[in-house]
Amino acid sequence: MVRTYREAGVDVEEAARAVERIARAAAATATPAVLSAIGGFGGLFRFDPASHPEPILVSSTDGVGTKLKVAVALGRHDTIGVDLVNACVNDIVVTGATPLFFLDYLAIGDLRADIVEEIVGGVAAGCAAAGIPLIGGETAQMPDLYRDADYDLAGFIVGVVAREDLIDGSSARADDVVIGLPSSGLHTNGYSLARRILREESWRSLMPDGDRTLGDALLEPHRSYLDEIRMLRRALREAGTDIGALAHITGGGWEGNVPRTLPVGLGVEIETGSWPIPSIFSLIQSSGDIADDEMVRTFNVGIGMTAVVPIEHADVAIAAVGGAYRIGRVVHVPQGEPRVRFA
Amino acid sequence: MVRTYREAGVDVEEAARAVERIARAAAATATPAVLSAIGGFGGLFRFDPASHPEPILVSSTDGVGTKLKVAVALGRHDTIGVDLVNACVNDIVVTGATPLFFLDYLAIGDLRADIVEEIVGGVAAGCAAAGIPLIGGETAQMPDLYRDADYDLAGFIVGVVAREDLIDGSSARADDVVIGLPSSGLHTNGYSLARRILREESWRSLMPDGDRTLGDALLEPHRSYLDEIRMLRRALREAGTDIGALAHITGGGWEGNVPRTLPVGLGVEIETGSWPIPSIFSLIQSSGDIADDEMVRTFNVGIGMTAVVPIEHADVAIAAVGGAYRIGRVVHVPQGEPRVRFA
Repeated sequence: MVRTYREAGVDVEEAARAVERIARAAAATATPAVLSAIGGFGGLFRFDPASHPEPILVSSTDGVGTKLKVAVALGRHDTIGVDLVNACVNDIVVTGATPLFFLDYLAIGDLRADIVEEIVGGVAAGCAAAGIPLIGGETAQMPDLYRDADYDLAGFIVGVVAREDLIDGSSARADDVVIGLPSSGLHTNGYSLARRILREESWRSLMPDGDRTLGDALLEPHRSYLDEIRMLRRALREAGTDIGALAHITGGGWEGNVPRTLPVGLGVEIETGSWPIPSIFSLIQSSGDIADDEMVRTFNVGIGMTAVVPIEHADVAIAAVGGAYRIGRVVHVPQGEPRVRFA
Repeated sequence: MVRTYREAGVDVEEAARAVERIARAAAATATPAVLSAIGGFGGLFRFDPASHPEPILVSSTDGVGTKLKVAVALGRHDTIGVDLVNACVNDIVVTGATPLFFLDYLAIGDLRADIVEEIVGGVAAGCAAAGIPLIGGETAQMPDLYRDADYDLAGFIVGVVAREDLIDGSSARADDVVIGLPSSGLHTNGYSLARRILREESWRSLMPDGDRTLGDALLEPHRSYLDEIRMLRRALREAGTDIGALAHITGGGWEGNVPRTLPVGLGVEIETGSWPIPSIFSLIQSSGDIADDEMVRTFNVGIGMTAVVPIEHADVAIAAVGGAYRIGRVVHVPQGEPRVRFA
């Protein structure tokens, strides 16, 4: 007979131990703007209105998809939080925003403080790298929703941009150049397909082209483009211009992300072969016999962020960020036709 | 052989249909401060610094626990979003904050646009009731993480409070009166225990004392205290004083929530019997033979929010909000002793 919360699978004491460790990880990310410690009801962040005239708060929420299943299978939980933070950071920096703070939601079946510490340690590391505090979070024990070691992880980010600094695609023009910033791998998209093709049995074997395992390649964290975009923007502004549009190549692939950052009537023509495809994508495509168009609908195929810049400043832009590629151009697209074309 | 994302269980077309319906629900909550439509990367919210001198952004994230399992079992998804919003609203209004905007994260195994619409419709209804826009969200299809019709739902809220209006417990004093605002039922806590005691087979039968089913009682949405707290505060300020502390009785029950809102050395003595216990709690306790102290550690037992107010203004406070109860007082508590005592 179940007569306590604990017997029902909710261990309040272990949860308290987890919260202690979370608080320690979060404290390491605190900045002078943080007025609260983790464990209160709400995270308190002192906002300085003078820092951004006509401030616009930019927020986003994201998860890491079934990359989680790879982390759980390999028992490595320390980078999935980095994925989470960077996925969220990229979602707001495309507007020109500066990240302010982060919160995480972790739902878990069998709560163990040491695993929670690993997961949230990754979140805190991602926050520290982005220069923002982890000011709140929720750790939910849901024994009947998540099997065994399974868990889900969602993140929330808030940033700010001055109205005059907002990047909204309105200045993008036909003949602008599309610049691609390289991804580190799958980032956090397409894992439900990738895991069907590259089965768990092979995750501990070496990649065909290198010295790391397939599991390592699959767990490679989502890259943050915060610094690259700052550098790119500074260089363009010094040259008297600005970024026209930015797209985070995330869920929905190229077609799902690039068009929504451009004015109606514009699309992009991408030059296949203008950047190197990381081997993880070639391996997935060849192992699964995946069609090209399915690849670019599901995966970033090596480019995690695209930037649209005026053609006359394309060289300045590429020189400003190391490792960027000139991958295409903005074109007029008649209504009803695909707005991303690979040539 | 799986060769597409769709065959791997991720239906991009159905997801697009879901996003359309989400966008419609969200659009109904838009305010003039919203500068973005759902579907962009980040939600854009114009912040008016003049509205709050020395603004502090107050944020929180929460889920609805395994109340989800009740919604799924009964196939009723239209109120769980209201639960989510109100749980988050209550977490920030305890600081005196005014809610600004909301985002949701929905992770689901088998994505169906009609069910997503029901769920997010509830979120939008909760937002509309709180007067805030739903400015962003993520809908993740994770076929291998969530079984069949299972899903998880997390929410994220941002509010603002002027520094001078922050409620942080520092003005609470011994002998202050504790006022309790009635809950509507379990709110979003203790469901993992409640569902073990009141089994699914009984959810369609009538409650012993009334004309609604046990399932209806279990799904009764989490109450928002936004309006009550505004009324309470206005009345106290007109009387030249203010709220000393507010506690949202949520995960962790009374002991887990009331003490953290009070200065060290203070606790509360609560008078058992000073408010009516809703029948759902009596039913759980008697059916499960649950000890009194386990009840108050796991459930709100009829009080969803406590407010600490100066004793000389307790009558004004109680008169200001309909249905509030005088339930106890603030007391000195020696270190190491329990800070919530039921007498």
